[in-house]
Amino acid sequence: MNSGDRTAGGGAARGSIAPSRQYQPYIEAAWGFKNAWYPALFSAELAENAVRGVTIAGHEIALRRIKGRVHAIQDRCAHRGVRMSLRPRCFTDDTITCWYHGFTYGLDDGVLKTIVASPEDPLIGKVRIRTYPVEERAGIIFIFVGDEEYAPAPPLAADLPVRIADDANPVAHILDDNTYVRGVHRRVESNWRLGVENGFDPGHLLIHWDNQIVAATDRRMGLGALPISEDAIKIIDEPNGPKGMMNMYNLRAYKFFMENAAIGMKARGKKPYYARTSVFLPGLLLVEHWPIPGWAQYEWYAPIDDKRHEYWEVLVGRASNDAERREAEYLYDAFFEPLALKDFNDNDVFAREAMQDFYESRDGWNAETLCAFDEATIVWRKVAARFNRGIQEPPARRTAR
Amino acid sequence: MNSGDRTAGGGAARGSIAPSRQYQPYIEAAWGFKNAWYPALFSAELAENAVRGVTIAGHEIALRRIKGRVHAIQDRCAHRGVRMSLRPRCFTDDTITCWYHGFTYGLDDGVLKTIVASPEDPLIGKVRIRTYPVEERAGIIFIFVGDEEYAPAPPLAADLPVRIADDANPVAHILDDNTYVRGVHRRVESNWRLGVENGFDPGHLLIHWDNQIVAATDRRMGLGALPISEDAIKIIDEPNGPKGMMNMYNLRAYKFFMENAAIGMKARGKKPYYARTSVFLPGLLLVEHWPIPGWAQYEWYAPIDDKRHEYWEVLVGRASNDAERREAEYLYDAFFEPLALKDFNDNDVFAREAMQDFYESRDGWNAETLCAFDEATIVWRKVAARFNRGIQEPPARRTAR
Amino acid sequence: MNSGDRTAGGGAARGSIAPSRQYQPYIEAAWGFKNAWYPALFSAELAENAVRGVTIAGHEIALRRIKGRVHAIQDRCAHRGVRMSLRPRCFTDDTITCWYHGFTYGLDDGVLKTIVASPEDPLIGKVRIRTYPVEERAGIIFIFVGDEEYAPAPPLAADLPVRIADDANPVAHILDDNTYVRGVHRRVESNWRLGVENGFDPGHLLIHWDNQIVAATDRRMGLGALPISEDAIKIIDEPNGPKGMMNMYNLRAYKFFMENAAIGMKARGKKPYYARTSVFLPGLLLVEHWPIPGWAQYEWYAPIDDKRHEYWEVLVGRASNDAERREAEYLYDAFFEPLALKDFNDNDVFAREAMQDFYESRDGWNAETLCAFDEATIVWRKVAARFNRGIQEPPARRTAR
Repeated sequence: MNSGDRTAGGGAARGSIAPSRQYQPYIEAAWGFKNAWYPALFSAELAENAVRGVTIAGHEIALRRIKGRVHAIQDRCAHRGVRMSLRPRCFTDDTITCWYHGFTYGLDDGVLKTIVASPEDPLIGKVRIRTYPVEERAGIIFIFVGDEEYAPAPPLAADLPVRIADDANPVAHILDDNTYVRGVHRRVESNWRLGVENGFDPGHLLIHWDNQIVAATDRRMGLGALPISEDAIKIIDEPNGPKGMMNMYNLRAYKFFMENAAIGMKARGKKPYYARTSVFLPGLLLVEHWPIPGWAQYEWYAPIDDKRHEYWEVLVGRASNDAERREAEYLYDAFFEPLALKDFNDNDVFAREAMQDFYESRDGWNAETLCAFDEATIVWRKVAARFNRGIQEPPARRTAR
Repeated sequence: MNSGDRTAGGGAARGSIAPSRQYQPYIEAAWGFKNAWYPALFSAELAENAVRGVTIAGHEIALRRIKGRVHAIQDRCAHRGVRMSLRPRCFTDDTITCWYHGFTYGLDDGVLKTIVASPEDPLIGKVRIRTYPVEERAGIIFIFVGDEEYAPAPPLAADLPVRIADDANPVAHILDDNTYVRGVHRRVESNWRLGVENGFDPGHLLIHWDNQIVAATDRRMGLGALPISEDAIKIIDEPNGPKGMMNMYNLRAYKFFMENAAIGMKARGKKPYYARTSVFLPGLLLVEHWPIPGWAQYEWYAPIDDKRHEYWEVLVGRASNDAERREAEYLYDAFFEPLALKDFNDNDVFAREAMQDFYESRDGWNAETLCAFDEATIVWRKVAARFNRGIQEPPARRTAR
Repeated sequence: MNSGDRTAGGGAARGSIAPSRQYQPYIEAAWGFKNAWYPALFSAELAENAVRGVTIAGHEIALRRIKGRVHAIQDRCAHRGVRMSLRPRCFTDDTITCWYHGFTYGLDDGVLKTIVASPEDPLIGKVRIRTYPVEERAGIIFIFVGDEEYAPAPPLAADLPVRIADDANPVAHILDDNTYVRGVHRRVESNWRLGVENGFDPGHLLIHWDNQIVAATDRRMGLGALPISEDAIKIIDEPNGPKGMMNMYNLRAYKFFMENAAIGMKARGKKPYYARTSVFLPGLLLVEHWPIPGWAQYEWYAPIDDKRHEYWEVLVGRASNDAERREAEYLYDAFFEPLALKDFNDNDVFAREAMQDFYESRDGWNAETLCAFDEATIVWRKVAARFNRGIQEPPARRTAR
């Protein structure tokens, strides 16, 4: 469709091997990467004794909190395949019961403990549905999603941002004590990869040009940043720990464009601003010193299926006592959520959904024409292709086995 | 998807041949069974001279009532394929005219009698669309749906419940005189087979546990019933008559569960209650002595296409004079329809629609894990596989011939 | 599905070769004919400096008007495939900028002039997206849609109605001076061919039988017209000019049916009325002397995709001075638009949408049963099959190249 591809397409301009071949597993990961920790719900969304269903990378999962602890179990009854979370029934503390015929499964092992309508059934004790490892940290319930036989699950910290030992001006890590953590999550109608790539894209400043947080705080928004040194993008490869990449924004490694003469456009805003972006497997953005210095924004783009992702926007700041927590709450409610998580990031959501049909129906992964600043995107794709723990198969293929 | 299948799946537990192989024609009958009588409309829904269109098992059919008699004819004009019922036009008593170009067909033979815009057309008298046999009984218009060349149609009674000769406490049959017959029908978003199987399922008491009719009448609801003798399920195989099966609920043939110790659940309600369920080809449930003794509920699950069925709920009681008819009407309006046909059966509709995506997209017919009380379901599937008069092809395949 | 096909189907009745084989390219033109002029917007719909996106035959096109002139350019950014018209950004008079990363293309040549976020990018000057020829005439913006390498585009007049040199009672041509041109366009949920064929169909009088314009003006509506001479339908084949066909309505060439005895129906209305219909490539209807003598109705059925078309209804009359223009405006507002373009043509829209599923899902192009008056339809199909400048490929196929 795109004559650009034929006349001066991205691939040919960057060498004789199409870049997409260099990260083929990433192209195939429409349903996400498996064997990884994903956020499922905020802790506050699952009250004591409540049951809720979520879908992550095609896995339908029911969560139940009992005596404070969260259990995650396959949200399809083995019998007739209905989702148990549609009409939650629980008769004991350690089971979940399907509302239809009363198949009752142990929350810890998934084993069929009884059938309400058939207490002596031969299937009891033999049939099993799967359960999922759960970690609840920092007010978020995480689930380890992937192959049941993949065990043990790596620690949650392996799928969170790396800790930089010698950081001059560090932000709090989400697993630290004495933090204030809040956020939102919402469904976005695009593949999860368009979410990740939009998140740390160094060239998409135009959609944030006139955002309220930028205008109200008079921040200096450059037009773009071009990596010019080998150090510009740092690969993160911790043994048994996080894998990802970090944009090392500084004047040695990047060229910053403050104007574009061809269209008469100059950077706007007077107050200089610094933020650092990194991205980690299985698809998690960290923006340090955003929306204000000392805070950090975490973003997960958890695949729902191959066309939609759950977009998590979480802010982490330090707060050691009640006064600091009240101040953090004030900032979150009056400033961070409306201006950063909503107004600013609404533009990112718009952009991801605008890309979807091109990548879904028009062979976008091959038809796109990447430019200089997309170096960061290509590095991410290669990192993701290399370090993932497996490509999630679609549900139908799992069933067909 | 379902680890239960791999660890202790239903199939292996019941012998070396997968049960689904034993009723393969049933698995293939996504569009229903053909060459059978299905309800199309209540008589009251088709006034004198009115035209209405229905879809049964993919057959689009126009009904017209003239001088009291109902005619059923293909609801696709041969010319450009529009549905004639979209804008009914009739110029004579014995024809129906397509609203677009005026192709006019004989109601009795389907032959093209004239074309409004082309009175001398060579096609006149040569082109023909098909007509369908119609029977109107007990306030219901039935149509014989299937192959045009299947003739003669068997009697309507062959596709209705069997008459039990020596029944100690019989209910009225829908074809009897002196009955009161009323009901509703509605579209359900599930395959028709999920309707049938839900209807007489002996293990789905949990969804009716707290229904208004159960609570208000203090009925004793057992938890489940397990067939324990060869006599538990009676195959109905009348020569030239109904084919189906009947649950012979009694203490010799069934074990009734009144409690489930594993989850501390006991049968509720004080008043004992008896009802008998049977099911007949092409997919018709009879519940005798329901919603109260002496009455019977008929349910048809008429396929619309492979994803939806028209759910018919019809009550039949005895009424020999005006006073009895007034009493029946009072019971129907104030009790039966709101508490039985609506509140109680709404739960069944919910369950069928909850199963649909598992059976449609997740290979449910093979991935399901049936349990002991599903013996009744398996017997029904085998009966249906054996006695049907043909599997309905989807419309596209019919066209492609 | 249609027993008519088997018993006396259209094909066999008209010779040993199925008619559909005689116009096979037409059957394949689900996405329309390419390399042709189509209307995109009324001039009044694109204000100075405005940007709007349209879709014609699967081509997504952005239009921008600057200093009065309209430019048409591919509405997919080469970079990440978003539609630029979603959030129009323009920084200079001769470019359009993608709102996402600032790819900025020359309106005249489609060449990438700069990238807002990457002013020194190697892609600049090398990548190109395509542009489309534009003609703005008679208050309508036309775009030449098809292969980029098809050049030069033929003159717009080649895709408009032919001018009849010796016409006794001519109407104004849309390219004439001193005309009054107004109309509407709307999306119709049918393939574009069902639009064309409905437009000049000589047998669809029944749907207009009781229309307001017919009843209010007491027009004489015959039941149908049958071509009886070789001169009935005139093929238009101008060298380098319009291709199409014209119904030569007159008593020598046509038999007009004023009654149909079989159903007791006679022509209604007292005032005789004359109109002439013709149709031209790529799919344009002309009805001369409609809705009143001296006026003409143009109708385009511009494919959007293979299931929808944009239906253009445009009236052309003569108006040489202000008084005549005021009179024309009065007639248009109070008479033509409500009674002709809306009430009358609403019935045509209904008919096209009623045909869609038959032609889309039921193999309608082969399963239809054409009759005598469909001679005109068959001639149109053959003309279209013979004279088109190419069959539009669907977008996916274009991408896959």
